[in-house]
Amino acid sequence: MSSTFGHTFRIHTFGESHGGGVGVVIDGCPPRIPVSLPQIQHELDRRRPGQSEIVTPRKEADTAELLSGIQDGLTLGCPIAILVRNTDQRPGAYDEMAVKYRPSHADYTYDAKYGIRSASGGGRASARETIGRVAAAAVARQVLDTLHPGIQVLAWVKSIQDLNATVDPETIDAQTIESNIVRTGDPAMVETMIERIKAIRSDGNSVGGVIECVIRNCPPGLGEPIFDKLEADLAKAMLSLPATKGFEIGSGFSGTLLTGREHNDPFRMVAGQVRTTRNHSGGVQGGISNGESIIFRVAFKPTATIMSNQETVTSAGENTELQGRGRHDACVLPRAVPIVEAMATLVLTDHLLRQKAIR
Amino acid sequence: MSSTFGHTFRIHTFGESHGGGVGVVIDGCPPRIPVSLPQIQHELDRRRPGQSEIVTPRKEADTAELLSGIQDGLTLGCPIAILVRNTDQRPGAYDEMAVKYRPSHADYTYDAKYGIRSASGGGRASARETIGRVAAAAVARQVLDTLHPGIQVLAWVKSIQDLNATVDPETIDAQTIESNIVRTGDPAMVETMIERIKAIRSDGNSVGGVIECVIRNCPPGLGEPIFDKLEADLAKAMLSLPATKGFEIGSGFSGTLLTGREHNDPFRMVAGQVRTTRNHSGGVQGGISNGESIIFRVAFKPTATIMSNQETVTSAGENTELQGRGRHDACVLPRAVPIVEAMATLVLTDHLLRQKAIR
Amino acid sequence: MSSTFGHTFRIHTFGESHGGGVGVVIDGCPPRIPVSLPQIQHELDRRRPGQSEIVTPRKEADTAELLSGIQDGLTLGCPIAILVRNTDQRPGAYDEMAVKYRPSHADYTYDAKYGIRSASGGGRASARETIGRVAAAAVARQVLDTLHPGIQVLAWVKSIQDLNATVDPETIDAQTIESNIVRTGDPAMVETMIERIKAIRSDGNSVGGVIECVIRNCPPGLGEPIFDKLEADLAKAMLSLPATKGFEIGSGFSGTLLTGREHNDPFRMVAGQVRTTRNHSGGVQGGISNGESIIFRVAFKPTATIMSNQETVTSAGENTELQGRGRHDACVLPRAVPIVEAMATLVLTDHLLRQKAIR
Amino acid sequence: MSSTFGHTFRIHTFGESHGGGVGVVIDGCPPRIPVSLPQIQHELDRRRPGQSEIVTPRKEADTAELLSGIQDGLTLGCPIAILVRNTDQRPGAYDEMAVKYRPSHADYTYDAKYGIRSASGGGRASARETIGRVAAAAVARQVLDTLHPGIQVLAWVKSIQDLNATVDPETIDAQTIESNIVRTGDPAMVETMIERIKAIRSDGNSVGGVIECVIRNCPPGLGEPIFDKLEADLAKAMLSLPATKGFEIGSGFSGTLLTGREHNDPFRMVAGQVRTTRNHSGGVQGGISNGESIIFRVAFKPTATIMSNQETVTSAGENTELQGRGRHDACVLPRAVPIVEAMATLVLTDHLLRQKAIR
Repeated sequence: MSSTFGHTFRIHTFGESHGGGVGVVIDGCPPRIPVSLPQIQHELDRRRPGQSEIVTPRKEADTAELLSGIQDGLTLGCPIAILVRNTDQRPGAYDEMAVKYRPSHADYTYDAKYGIRSASGGGRASARETIGRVAAAAVARQVLDTLHPGIQVLAWVKSIQDLNATVDPETIDAQTIESNIVRTGDPAMVETMIERIKAIRSDGNSVGGVIECVIRNCPPGLGEPIFDKLEADLAKAMLSLPATKGFEIGSGFSGTLLTGREHNDPFRMVAGQVRTTRNHSGGVQGGISNGESIIFRVAFKPTATIMSNQETVTSAGENTELQGRGRHDACVLPRAVPIVEAMATLVLTDHLLRQKAIR
Repeated sequence: MSSTFGHTFRIHTFGESHGGGVGVVIDGCPPRIPVSLPQIQHELDRRRPGQSEIVTPRKEADTAELLSGIQDGLTLGCPIAILVRNTDQRPGAYDEMAVKYRPSHADYTYDAKYGIRSASGGGRASARETIGRVAAAAVARQVLDTLHPGIQVLAWVKSIQDLNATVDPETIDAQTIESNIVRTGDPAMVETMIERIKAIRSDGNSVGGVIECVIRNCPPGLGEPIFDKLEADLAKAMLSLPATKGFEIGSGFSGTLLTGREHNDPFRMVAGQVRTTRNHSGGVQGGISNGESIIFRVAFKPTATIMSNQETVTSAGENTELQGRGRHDACVLPRAVPIVEAMATLVLTDHLLRQKAIR
Repeated sequence: MSSTFGHTFRIHTFGESHGGGVGVVIDGCPPRIPVSLPQIQHELDRRRPGQSEIVTPRKEADTAELLSGIQDGLTLGCPIAILVRNTDQRPGAYDEMAVKYRPSHADYTYDAKYGIRSASGGGRASARETIGRVAAAAVARQVLDTLHPGIQVLAWVKSIQDLNATVDPETIDAQTIESNIVRTGDPAMVETMIERIKAIRSDGNSVGGVIECVIRNCPPGLGEPIFDKLEADLAKAMLSLPATKGFEIGSGFSGTLLTGREHNDPFRMVAGQVRTTRNHSGGVQGGISNGESIIFRVAFKPTATIMSNQETVTSAGENTELQGRGRHDACVLPRAVPIVEAMATLVLTDHLLRQKAIR
Repeated sequence: MSSTFGHTFRIHTFGESHGGGVGVVIDGCPPRIPVSLPQIQHELDRRRPGQSEIVTPRKEADTAELLSGIQDGLTLGCPIAILVRNTDQRPGAYDEMAVKYRPSHADYTYDAKYGIRSASGGGRASARETIGRVAAAAVARQVLDTLHPGIQVLAWVKSIQDLNATVDPETIDAQTIESNIVRTGDPAMVETMIERIKAIRSDGNSVGGVIECVIRNCPPGLGEPIFDKLEADLAKAMLSLPATKGFEIGSGFSGTLLTGREHNDPFRMVAGQVRTTRNHSGGVQGGISNGESIIFRVAFKPTATIMSNQETVTSAGENTELQGRGRHDACVLPRAVPIVEAMATLVLTDHLLRQKAIR
């Protein structure tokens, strides 16, 4: 179990879906950064269940408590511990799971790895674990704002199944994204996407999609060759999120269809700055930011929890069938948008501090 | 600069394309593992320039020297240092690069990050750096063979530009892949792909594509939630390779088009083992291997070095034009196949040792 | 701020003396280890203020709450988070400290490092931080008992100022140490030591001393050359404790008076085991345990908090005088005994798991 | 085997006493630091065997080769690899060692840990490993000089057995230390110490002693609470050196004899700076440098290699006797002086970069 992320700005998350609570300890945060509890809570509210009609109806207040590291609204340079209590405990609802492995969940693999497993719900594999990440990123966001104001991190739903949003990463704004419950950046697709999610949910089924994210005004020079390339750390950050199956940056997989002549990004001086006239690189070259917008996409599979009966096996090794029931997100993407932003923010903050150490 | 990869089986690479040499120090390798220098050399030969008519004609022998850590063919448990001397030094050929940033290379970003840059060639950003990774993976390969015999790691060229190979990850073998210089797993596509690469090279242009990789017979239980999930570490490993723009595992991006009912992998008991009847998960669930084949794909952009004149800027901040010349790979994929296998092997070995620590 | 200790069995502590609380997150703990909350509480009670007439009279219940990672008395392999609330908050008592640097405390250096400081008490530098270590070590203790039963870790007060206890590390037992409130291993010195502490306290002064620790039945082979030698990690562990000024193992500083002929530990076979007939090495050779008892000593300076007026400066840079007042430990050693054991236990557990990874 | 030291300025050493060579890879070194090979060689020459009549007569040139990371005398920000070839290989001289465990060496413990051992000489446990540390520290020295000029690191022989040097850490200079082959800081003791070493050597015996080290002009604020306290990292650094048995800082073990009233270091403003009027703290408070001189001492045991016959056992588990023969240092301290300085320099440089990351 490795619950630590980051090299210089490091976070350690903890907690299962049922038990005392979930949270995070942040270590390596610079001192004297203004951080308020409401800022943290604001980000938690963006990922909270029950926030709209298209997400899981579970009622989890997810109220953050600050245990250490911040005093009078300023970071002390000491570890910042944040705790969110678990409140909506219904272990009874999960009795069946204790013995039957839910398909495409982590039940079987946790048993295979540890020989023991949280008796109810997703345990440590629950998406509740991301609460710690989001809380930590709310702190990191303030580090960026203080040390290098102007960096923007924005994510949106790029596609739900085959429904694609048309979004310009250079101009999209937070207001447009947050103005709709599906958190897509394309107003024209909002209703269609919502209808799709509702229809799928009515059918007891689920859907996935793609989240796109842009980092604007990132200074050139962030990212550490060789292994901690900026895109490598972003890829790891995104693939560490539950339900993700893919990551691509800049031209990504479709860039493999171009020739080098089409794909290379020519340099030009613009207003005294080295700029590229295209951005197939996605803002990163040789693992280091080049000052252009960093653009990447993350694939989320359809939610594994569905309302159908499914073939599975018991932990005792017998074939059986799992009944479909319970509350779930038919589509996790609207709630995953702030989580993608959170992970990108953590990666950036870590690399900003790492760069400070050597320059 | 972070040139360390791995937590328990750790490698540290070093070296620029021009200078004394490139290499690796491996730390954390278990003792008493049989490793011979010819085994290491064999893998280096698979990634070497000049090995066939479709790769760069540069002549680099890439001869490995073992400096420490192995005695009489057995690892000592001490750091294993391997050095490959640089021999083909032609700094004169790179004079222009010293002042003009090559588009979509790392010249500008290294300058932005460090304020200094190796005067010739790619310096540290050169693909020569991967020599250290391949040498280390040849050692790791023996660790796997010794501690958990039977694990297979095979990669092949899945596509060159729009040319797609049809390959069954469950049955493809090394002989098929190595029998053709393009290292695709589909004999029917060999000639077409070779022709495409030759045509593109004749035009002074370049192409990219997708490499697919399978890990067969991986024991269930490898991978460390939360952040060091197996797919997260694989994604980082692959995105740390030069020229990569994307990673997907299992159903990947196309899996976002399915519904949960179609995507979930039902469990069934087969010969006393917990197995899945589909493998959209790509062998990993909740960040932990489930015993099925681990299947992933990596997108490589077209080589940035092309023979055309390109718009660029000088390090002094003036617009200019870069002349196309020099030797290059019109398509890096054939040589990248052993490197993808190497990185996958390193990730697996590290996680195997990490699992040993707790079970 | 680096609040992480350990490589494979890792702990992250958090919390200031005043604020929500202090605690620890343990990562890398093997699964299925039996751990009960009372076991953890028992160790916390041994370090608690107010436990006897010779320690600080502050009343801190230090009640541990288990937030995650343990279910039905067994570890899950997930991070174990333990929280101890701060209860005895009297910030008013510390007003003077906010502006005057207490001599030989960390007030000035925290300001120098962070440019900000917890407004009251020791903040993060408070010995309350060690609560997290002791709680984590109570878990580690169970890991040792499960994976390698029989390892004993015992510490005792070896000296208070010039008062020296005579203790045989090979035979001393926990009962003897715990039977007296000064926690010395020499019954003949108990009263003298208690009288010294009381006398010093009556005078508003303080004393230090030396704690000795033995690890018995440690298997040979623990410790990682080169930098993570067992004695190096023990030294770091002990010097990371507040008020420590020195560490020595085996013959230590007095061993420098011997010649090699006197100092070398001859090997002999005893009952089929490789043993040494002396133990000047202190159970460690070349950084690796040799199966003999590991014996080391830790120097604790006199408590910095005294009841006298002292010359000091303000945070504004003016000479001033600090009034002596408040509650304090005239001698920290009795309460430091379980903390020394805790750090030794953490080092051992980490190295046991590291050894498991490679053998 | 953990051959990595440092968090931000990280070094990885490699190599056995017999084999291709020993060396180091430095990662995290800031770019554009002037470093010349002669500077590195100069420090290696200070630790080299055969440099004077009181050290081992082995002839090892220890010539450093720079493999990567420095170009035209400036660091590139890339890993700096330095290799020193092994030349004086006389494996025949060590045949007996292959089967008989040398008392108080690491022969037995390496076998116990790894189940295999370098067939000749000390292998990885040889003091030759410190070559990599000294080379790395020569680079680190330049980092300090560039980023924070004026920091001085000076070590000297404080005692040989019972012979004590009188040295004022505030005024001692390098010239005084280097002017005598025993590297003591007290001219009055030079001849006596040399005579003692020669007499002991004539007798085939060996002696140890204490090395003292001062770091002057260290800026306040270095050191990372909680676990990476400056003194904790120094203690670990020193105890990671071969033959060390103890570490103390400031008042050390003798400080335990004082009361708090005597021990506390009062603060006074001096020339606008916060200073202490005593320095029992040894320049560190709460794990952070306070701007005063950092003073510590390291105990070195008598060299384990002696010319007497000794009782020991074979690797097959039989009692036997080891013949005394070979070349050795009767006293390692003169050659250990530059190594102690090296480790202190590495610790400082790492903490300077870590502090840069957050301030």
